[in-house]
Parts: sequence; C-alpha cells; structure tokens
Amino acid sequence: MRRFFVDITDLNQDKVTLPPDESKHAAKVLRMKCGDQMEIVNGKGVLFTGEIIDDAPKSVIVQKLDYIQESPDEHHIHIAIAPTKNNDRYEWFLEKATELGIHEITPILCKNAERKRIKPERFQKILVSAIKQSKRLFLPKLNALTKVEDFISQHPSGLIAHCYEEEDRNTTIAKSLSTNSSQFTKANTPILIGPEGDFTLNEIEKALKNQYQAVTLGKTRLRTETAGVYACMAVKQYFEEQ
Amino acid sequence: MRRFFVDITDLNQDKVTLPPDESKHAAKVLRMKCGDQMEIVNGKGVLFTGEIIDDAPKSVIVQKLDYIQESPDEHHIHIAIAPTKNNDRYEWFLEKATELGIHEITPILCKNAERKRIKPERFQKILVSAIKQSKRLFLPKLNALTKVEDFISQHPSGLIAHCYEEEDRNTTIAKSLSTNSSQFTKANTPILIGPEGDFTLNEIEKALKNQYQAVTLGKTRLRTETAGVYACMAVKQYFEEQ
Repeated sequence: MRRFFVDITDLNQDKVTLPPDESKHAAKVLRMKCGDQMEIVNGKGVLFTGEIIDDAPKSVIVQKLDYIQESPDEHHIHIAIAPTKNNDRYEWFLEKATELGIHEITPILCKNAERKRIKPERFQKILVSAIKQSKRLFLPKLNALTKVEDFISQHPSGLIAHCYEEEDRNTTIAKSLSTNSSQFTKANTPILIGPEGDFTLNEIEKALKNQYQAVTLGKTRLRTETAGVYACMAVKQYFEEQ
Repeated sequence: MRRFFVDITDLNQDKVTLPPDESKHAAKVLRMKCGDQMEIVNGKGVLFTGEIIDDAPKSVIVQKLDYIQESPDEHHIHIAIAPTKNNDRYEWFLEKATELGIHEITPILCKNAERKRIKPERFQKILVSAIKQSKRLFLPKLNALTKVEDFISQHPSGLIAHCYEEEDRNTTIAKSLSTNSSQFTKANTPILIGPEGDFTLNEIEKALKNQYQAVTLGKTRLRTETAGVYACMAVKQYFEEQ
C-alpha cells in the first residue's frame, strides 16, 4: 500500500486532508480514487491506514480507519557531517543514513568547508521520501547548519573521525563506544565527519578537549558522504548487538 | 599529485604513453606541461611516479621516475548484486563499494530483475575513477552479468541476504562468517544481494541447497544498492578485525 506523509499531531482526528504535494501525487500521478486505501505516516512513530473519501486533486481527504503507534528506538544515532561540494552526494548520504536508521543529522560548517550554504527544505524532502520508502515511522531530525566549534560546545562528548596519520586514532567506533560505555551512552554520542579537506588540527584539538574521542573508519580513504554512511552503519550495528 | 590510470604490465618500461582519454584530461583539462609530475596506477597494485616529457594532447608521454608495488589484501570481498532499475543507484554502489575496498562485483540476473541489460564499459569507468579518488591500487574485478542460478553453481558456498520474514535469517554477516570460518574463508565468500522485488523462494532454496547461508542486514529495510554497500562494510569490518 502506498505511503504518504502528513504531519498529524491529533491521533484521534477522524479525517485527514493531504497537503497539496501529497494530494497531487495521490490524485494526479497515482490516479487514486474514492474508496482506495492508503497508509499515512506522521514521522513521529504513527502509521495510519485510511480510505479516500474525496479525491479532489488539490485536497484529497482520507477517512481514518486505524492506526498503530511504534515506540522510538532506545538508541540515538546522530551524525554531524560537513556538506559536500556536490549536493547529490550529501542527498545520497541523507537517504542512505535514513534507510539505515539515523535519528539526527547536523550539517556542520568547518574551516575547510566546500559548501557553506545548504537548502534545508530540499534535504527535508529527501528525508521524508526516504522514510516512506524504507517503511520507517520516525523522521530523522535535521538541524540547522552549525559551526563545528559551536556544535562541540553544545554537545560535550562524542566521536570525531579524521584522516591525520600522526594523530592517534587507533580506535574504531565500536571499540570506543564499548570502552567508554558510561560516557558514550546510547542517547548521547554524536559522530563528527569532516569535509573532503578534513578537520583542521585546531578543530580536532577543540573536540578532544571536550571529551571527544578520535576514531578511525577503517584502512581505506572514504569520501565525506561514504564516511557518514559508514559511521551510521557502525553505530547501528553496535547498538543493535547490545 | 594527480593520479592517472594506465594498464601497464611491464613494470620496467621506461616511458608510458597515456591512453587518449587520460592524455586529453592531462593536457587539455588540467593543462599539464612537460616537467609536471604525476602518479599512474595500473589497477594491479602498482603506483608509478613519472614526469611528462611530451605533452601532446592525444598522446602524453610520461618518463617513469619510480614505482612501488603493494601486496593484495589477504581477504576478498565479492558482492553479487542485481542491477537496479535506476543506473545512478548502481553506479553509486560501485563507487562506494570501491572506496570501501571491494575486490569483485558480479551483476546478477534474477527472476524479479528490474534491469536485464547493463553497460559494462560505463561501470568499468566508474571503478577506475573510484580507485583514483580513493587512492586504491587494485581495481575491483567486474564480471559479466550472470544468471543467479549459474552464479550459485559456479560459487558453491556463500551468503544470501533476503527479506522474507518466514524464512530463517537470524544470522548477521559477521556471525555467519565467524561461526563457519572453515567454510567461509577470507577468499571464498560471495554475498548475494537481490533486486528490489527480492529473490524468489526458488532462488533462495537453490542457494541454501548449495551451502549458502541466509543472512539479515539489520532491522531496517534497505534498497538494493544500500544493501550492497552495507554488506561490503560488514565483510570489510569483519576481516579487518581478524
């Protein structure tokens, strides 16, 4: 059954009017009619099943039949990652990270930034589309573009992945989370992924002074967006095995 | 330093003539001149350093200065994965898998195939470009499109990831490799990733009869190309920690 996204907060409301873009998609693209059933997610853990009772293209109305509410995951995957020069690549990261179960994303602004401006509305659409496709019920939270120094101050403690050979980064994500399990809790461990030109030594030093631990993402050199997906996967695997 | 790809087999040859596309890129796009240095990889573990002695756009000639030869990895990551309807997605997989260290890729043709024809030359270019960018010295091997039943016959033993709830697939890739380490050696464990419509029960049955083990890729539903990258990461992590 097709899945649509509507920001429904009142779970008991009887009817739902689809927003313009979803209405148009249902009525004009998919040619859905009165009587057709659909699923609606609100991005907050709820999955509604409903039936179309008005198929007007600009405002399709759905009669709610039933709903289920899912509990959020106990763990929380938060990746703070520098926007890439090429937007496609960052959008790929957003989609893949969502499929893999990310909970929170913060685009970070670093000294070696390749891109200093982003389009949050576009990124939000990617996330919504990704939860529909991957059957997730919780929409990842997308934060505003944040200077990396400010992020570090706001999030005392986390992990930072960088590529400097000389700096000590023998630990993998799994080992770091496991060795410091009281400090790095399920809910509280963002991972910093830098731009193609890497973090500066100052940025790394600031992180380390703020209880961040440096980690390695393996022996091969990864693009920013690949590093983001790899980190997401490593954290997911770690918490799923707890 | 810029990296170029030339299929050099004679390591002792003194001069290298770049093929037309690489020549053009060096001479016209990057405007490199006589005296400029460059790196050349042959995809077989060798990294040459050389200096341009003839910068004619159609046939740049490079004087070899030095070379290093790397040993291949001890482990071998082989993903057999169904081509996706959207080529961009499959090309993302090829690029990401290469960054992550994949050694061999076989596009497989399944009953629920969304795409039955592929462009191997285009895929090959993606792989070459990916090894240059990720500083890898070995070019992953790209096999011809192969029917999944034939692949299973040619590769007795491996892992198969599928989405059927009823079928037993409690094991993760790491657990499967670890529990059956005599059967699933570092060099001998391809992983089958199916199309969006999944493998058919017949295809899974054939695999299981041929000593394949069914694995799960986690709790969330992944697109084909995401599953391919995830499997690649999981195998890489497993072997890097041995």
